Amino acid sequence: LAKLQPGVRSSLERIVGAEHLRVDPDALASYGVDALGQGHPADLVVLPGSTEEVAAILRLCNDARVPVVPRGAGTGYTGGAVPVRGGVVLSLERFTHILEIDIANLLAVVEAHVITGDLQAAVERVGLFYPPDPASLSQSTIGGNIAECAGGPRAFKYGVTRRYVLALEAVLATGEIIHTGSKAVKNVVGYDLTQLIIGSEGTLAVVTKAVVRLVPRPAQQATLGASFDSIEAAVSAIAALLAAGALPATLELIDADTLAAVADYAGRALAPPGTAALLIIEADGLPAGVAEELSRVESACRGAGATRIETAVEAAERAELWRVRREMSLAVRALAPLKINHDVVVPKGRIPALFALIERLRREHGLRIPCFGHAGDGNIHVNIMVDPANASAIAAARRAERTLFEGVVALEGSITGEHGIGFSKAPYLSLELSSAEIALMKRVKQAFDPNGILNPGKIFPD
Amino acid sequence: LAKLQPGVRSSLERIVGAEHLRVDPDALASYGVDALGQGHPADLVVLPGSTEEVAAILRLCNDARVPVVPRGAGTGYTGGAVPVRGGVVLSLERFTHILEIDIANLLAVVEAHVITGDLQAAVERVGLFYPPDPASLSQSTIGGNIAECAGGPRAFKYGVTRRYVLALEAVLATGEIIHTGSKAVKNVVGYDLTQLIIGSEGTLAVVTKAVVRLVPRPAQQATLGASFDSIEAAVSAIAALLAAGALPATLELIDADTLAAVADYAGRALAPPGTAALLIIEADGLPAGVAEELSRVESACRGAGATRIETAVEAAERAELWRVRREMSLAVRALAPLKINHDVVVPKGRIPALFALIERLRREHGLRIPCFGHAGDGNIHVNIMVDPANASAIAAARRAERTLFEGVVALEGSITGEHGIGFSKAPYLSLELSSAEIALMKRVKQAFDPNGILNPGKIFPD
Repeated sequence: LAKLQPGVRSSLERIVGAEHLRVDPDALASYGVDALGQGHPADLVVLPGSTEEVAAILRLCNDARVPVVPRGAGTGYTGGAVPVRGGVVLSLERFTHILEIDIANLLAVVEAHVITGDLQAAVERVGLFYPPDPASLSQSTIGGNIAECAGGPRAFKYGVTRRYVLALEAVLATGEIIHTGSKAVKNVVGYDLTQLIIGSEGTLAVVTKAVVRLVPRPAQQATLGASFDSIEAAVSAIAALLAAGALPATLELIDADTLAAVADYAGRALAPPGTAALLIIEADGLPAGVAEELSRVESACRGAGATRIETAVEAAERAELWRVRREMSLAVRALAPLKINHDVVVPKGRIPALFALIERLRREHGLRIPCFGHAGDGNIHVNIMVDPANASAIAAARRAERTLFEGVVALEGSITGEHGIGFSKAPYLSLELSSAEIALMKRVKQAFDPNGILNPGKIFPD
Repeated sequence: LAKLQPGVRSSLERIVGAEHLRVDPDALASYGVDALGQGHPADLVVLPGSTEEVAAILRLCNDARVPVVPRGAGTGYTGGAVPVRGGVVLSLERFTHILEIDIANLLAVVEAHVITGDLQAAVERVGLFYPPDPASLSQSTIGGNIAECAGGPRAFKYGVTRRYVLALEAVLATGEIIHTGSKAVKNVVGYDLTQLIIGSEGTLAVVTKAVVRLVPRPAQQATLGASFDSIEAAVSAIAALLAAGALPATLELIDADTLAAVADYAGRALAPPGTAALLIIEADGLPAGVAEELSRVESACRGAGATRIETAVEAAERAELWRVRREMSLAVRALAPLKINHDVVVPKGRIPALFALIERLRREHGLRIPCFGHAGDGNIHVNIMVDPANASAIAAARRAERTLFEGVVALEGSITGEHGIGFSKAPYLSLELSSAEIALMKRVKQAFDPNGILNPGKIFPD
């Protein structure tokens, strides 16, 4: 791939106008990082205003063999939206319109840079619901969520982003505008390019527009917090409530290390002393169904030895329980300057084995590793907290990280459930995939992007 | 592609043993048709007994450039499992084992040729549930369901086959055995090859094994039948019940032409005179939730002008309501020797426009076109009934078919929601996909199968 030639800059300027190029060092630096906090400054940032401009930019960069890094809100944890060796950052930030909310057909048509939380608010105002709820939803965009296949607490009942995307408008590296899927909720016409592009981290195509599926807004939501004195007890409560026919919207778990961080940060304990796991469980649906579900959840938790149970049906009570979840992030961040946030995932019955492994990592490496996440999906955020100025702590964190990844693969899980590979996990790809599988994925990449200009250095190890 | 050379036959015999080759004309003919009733006899049928044998067969046929047609139970409606110009039919029929039902992790590991209904029965015995329920479930296989991305009535609430497949073991045309996905319910490691292979109709890889996701068996199920004197009224009942917070497992619609066929066949009417649409709606979940849901469904139906409502909570009553659905198939088949069964799909609010189009086709072409299907998904089975001996009727049916497909695309729907393209719909692919999209799909095909030996003549028009 080539460095940015002067002619490319002037051509880009002709496509989008000078006011939609960013070349000042501050902009190049800020578009060169995401939530991972690492990356490389862009050579140039371009802000197209239409799909046709995206197509023209890609044709130009493909001809000149210049790398193009598509970028949403930059909230990802694996460096997916940042250049690894320069090139053009193509920010979708001008694609901000909700084009259509179609109540009769339960769908919305949105541009790529619509903020997920804004879409949720807009559809809830007309009685509908867009379930995917990544923690970043107040900043992250539908396009970014699609690039990474974002999840969130409600994925347990409702499924991840993949389940809510019916159709895409996207631009290939060679500049062709394609439309995948349709407004129909079922479609088996040829290969499912929609599903293939979702989660491809901007390496196959630039998504400019999406048709998303909506569901009716649940009539009622209720939340329950249950404390347990072991991870095993919490996991057996989950098994028992599922066996009792409950299917909550969320099944979130918060571990002792996180609870301790919150107690230190907020100055009050969220759970009784000795709590090893706090479950936050939300039920939604029709009122009678929610009441029955909550009562089954409660008896399952009691049967599994819950030491404290709090239920919240009113909005204010629910908000208080969920405030914990928000404080948690701040409290964890306060532990150390660097949070190495991994979203590993295991078959849910193996969560105790995962936590046994994490406990061993804490002991062997002397690290704070607060963990929380989507227990119903077996998807746990493992936060290795370190001071980047401390070289031996960083080295320990990297050793712990490798052991963690090897451990989840041995448990028949996966090294990432929501965040993607980006460049930070690329060195670990072969822990989970064989060389035949990686070679096949590279051939698929080639089918979309013959010159490898789209988001190079991501997913695949160099 | 090459004709079957004598050396290939003896090599195949060495791989699987003579007892697992079929070469007699009866076998070649019977493996040469599926539910579409058209096709071409196989040159040879091979029945491998292991994934390694599948790999050896594919390596051999790839080297000799011999077409290989993977085949499940042969219940498809688009010719997906039959040769179009000879070659080897690779039947998975010896892959019949349920290898694992893992209650703690809510998953099952199955070989490709496990009958869908058998898997459902096996998991229901231990309190679990495999939702996808194609009409063919007593014969069709998980492998076939994966190849076509099968749906069924319960897809409305639960989603299609795609949502229940976590991982695949599959063999590439070049003989490499790959494993996609994992036992974790979330996985964003590289491209989602699992989702790409699902619905690819045996053109990308031969699926030998799958890990499927299970859910807890619903504690209760209840069924409601509601008759309406117009399609519009039935569709407005669906909108109203969704707006009221009901989310039934199924929302099936049966039209007047089908009801007339059942009345003629069974000698009794299923709905009051003048019924234009009968909805069969099933609710499932916890008992209090089901009761509340059913009551909301009932008032929504009454509000939309239902002329008769029957509810069935006991198993025997439910079975009676669903017997209609089974009789329906027989009754429709009795109308004419050939049923051209199309599974078109539109955004659900546009079902009345779809039925207006079908009514026009009936009038203009003088055809019986009984329709029924999954109204909640906008997925309607349009059955054009003709006598194949009547050339002018066949010509009329073909004209009606093209008008139907053009119409659903104009309604922003899709020409197939469940059955796939096979060879029968391949000539219509470009109604829905642009040449850039088709070219991209062909490059993806090439990435998997460089010599084009896997199921040639399917999906893509010649």
